[in-house]
Amino acid sequence: MPPFLSISRRTRRTPFTDRVTAAGVSAYTIYNHMLLPTVFRSVTEDYRHLKTAVQVWDVACERQVEVRGPQAAELVQMLTPRDLSDMIIGQCLYTPMVDETGGMLNDPVTVKLDEDRYWVSIADSDLLFWVKALAHGFRLAVDVFEPDVSPLAIQGPQADELASRVFGDAVRSIRFFRYKRLSFNGAELVVARSGYSKQGGFEIYVEGAQHAEPLWDALFEAGRDLDVRAGCPNLIERIEAGMLSYGNDMTRANTPHECGLGRFCDTRSAIGCVGRDALLRVAKEGPLKQIRYLEIEGDAVPPCTEPWLVRAGDEVVGQITSAALSPDFGTNVAIGMIGRDFWEEGTLLDVMAPDGGRRARVRAGSWL
Amino acid sequence: MPPFLSISRRTRRTPFTDRVTAAGVSAYTIYNHMLLPTVFRSVTEDYRHLKTAVQVWDVACERQVEVRGPQAAELVQMLTPRDLSDMIIGQCLYTPMVDETGGMLNDPVTVKLDEDRYWVSIADSDLLFWVKALAHGFRLAVDVFEPDVSPLAIQGPQADELASRVFGDAVRSIRFFRYKRLSFNGAELVVARSGYSKQGGFEIYVEGAQHAEPLWDALFEAGRDLDVRAGCPNLIERIEAGMLSYGNDMTRANTPHECGLGRFCDTRSAIGCVGRDALLRVAKEGPLKQIRYLEIEGDAVPPCTEPWLVRAGDEVVGQITSAALSPDFGTNVAIGMIGRDFWEEGTLLDVMAPDGGRRARVRAGSWL
Repeated sequence: MPPFLSISRRTRRTPFTDRVTAAGVSAYTIYNHMLLPTVFRSVTEDYRHLKTAVQVWDVACERQVEVRGPQAAELVQMLTPRDLSDMIIGQCLYTPMVDETGGMLNDPVTVKLDEDRYWVSIADSDLLFWVKALAHGFRLAVDVFEPDVSPLAIQGPQADELASRVFGDAVRSIRFFRYKRLSFNGAELVVARSGYSKQGGFEIYVEGAQHAEPLWDALFEAGRDLDVRAGCPNLIERIEAGMLSYGNDMTRANTPHECGLGRFCDTRSAIGCVGRDALLRVAKEGPLKQIRYLEIEGDAVPPCTEPWLVRAGDEVVGQITSAALSPDFGTNVAIGMIGRDFWEEGTLLDVMAPDGGRRARVRAGSWL
Repeated sequence: MPPFLSISRRTRRTPFTDRVTAAGVSAYTIYNHMLLPTVFRSVTEDYRHLKTAVQVWDVACERQVEVRGPQAAELVQMLTPRDLSDMIIGQCLYTPMVDETGGMLNDPVTVKLDEDRYWVSIADSDLLFWVKALAHGFRLAVDVFEPDVSPLAIQGPQADELASRVFGDAVRSIRFFRYKRLSFNGAELVVARSGYSKQGGFEIYVEGAQHAEPLWDALFEAGRDLDVRAGCPNLIERIEAGMLSYGNDMTRANTPHECGLGRFCDTRSAIGCVGRDALLRVAKEGPLKQIRYLEIEGDAVPPCTEPWLVRAGDEVVGQITSAALSPDFGTNVAIGMIGRDFWEEGTLLDVMAPDGGRRARVRAGSWL
């Protein structure tokens, strides 16, 4: 049995927490000092439902770092090696963010709200501290703060149907990683086609906590015949989908290239990025290890609560950082980082799981 | 029943986690992306034991930000309004840290290891990001990183006795908020007289994870007749002791003056602090609200998982952020922030606890 979680003000509730509790959440993690549900019925049951119906997720823990002011674009470009010069209002971009040595600080989605206004929708680290200090150190004309914005996700094959019932048919024509401002409860909310699953859906940036419960209730009211349920990012599905988790599959110790995110490093054009020089060097030499997807043999693996060493014979050649049994693929699906001599598709390796050694096989890509 | 906690690599285990598990931990919180035990037997039983015997605490989550290099002292002074010009090697200082507007970013203990080397032993925020970005923005000649240092605390009336059995009698003469380097397991560990209780004791900065379990085992072996137990910061005792918790009792929204930490703001001399100008203004005008200790009437309060409004009649005049029933004082002890017109000792107020309104009384100070 897992341990209990003690909740205090520091592990912040979200504007949806009362609804999540009423929906029967059974486990949480803490993410950006905030409650993030991890299980409702069971990870496997939640998985089945996510893949066949539609779920509403409290992902308020995806906090926003708002950057606003005449030098906002300049500052946001300092954060990421991805070239943002062509980014348009209405667009969302996955933007690895790095320190001056090219180490990953976060892998947020950046939302361009206006020419001088951005939301950086963050993974689990206090990126706000980094952005604020850069703004201060470089004396930039910007405001940097955490606004009252709590994302709510609609994910699953019926997401378009459910969202359209609440926001109208306009949602259906939202393109991938684009957003529209749509009316709800007297407000204009940013509704983006995005989310931390490959089942399709939306993230609604609920600006103003007073809209949170009305939106939750409207979605559940509208989706009753769709079997809409409260859900959350699902461990199995997100590994199948090959979605990395900052803090799990990568840390500050890693470059974007090690994370397989080299395609987002336009270091030639993105000259403003503070990590550019370091990443030019990395791009030239190539990473010595990189994220790979692996199948692990045997019964269901235990929870991966710390990196599991990966060996080729006696040599340690990598580590596994996320793993779970996939009902649909009939194998344990896993994400790890593997040394360059051993990362080719089909390579057979040994994983030192806590319940014993297991054979594993490197794949060409993720499952979904 | 509280919810379960899902543990992953992201919610980092500590070098002591296997021992903590074996000792029967029943609940955790997450602190600096790391496991922090909150309960072993029960909060009340842990409290009784802490006050009468001796406990060993896994506080590895008090991560260190190491600042090293020719401009280390300059950078550390930029972080805090406390004047560090007289700080000597061997000293630890409680150092509120603020942003450029004087908002609290963390309230760590700073440890001076050498003229050009410091550990900032942090509360729950990624202060590393702030420090790294300042170093980068101001082009300072420093390295800033998280070293492999995991504090282990010995707390309780028998702490001197237990610590001396493992480290020798030298521990007895360590002064409050000073440290000595003492031998263990072939290493020289920083042993400081400090800790997050008022029962007395030490924090050992275990540098090198390989020393963690040997130290834990040595303490339990040496302390068998002292009834040494695994423990953790205790909610009741820390409120009685008036010890603030960053994220609970104060946030970025608060100045040190609001937190009752104005005595640590030597803004006249600490001219390097980035928040100095803002805090000079605050010091001049005085805070409009401030931390106060309050007794709340009635049976045991429920867990304080979000701020409880405090009213005087119909007017909201403050909030409670930490509260628990104190067996020793026979009342609910609480920490809150109260407006200046209502913060005098003896003022009677109404607390909007989730189970109903209760009378509360402002105290002159904490209980211990």
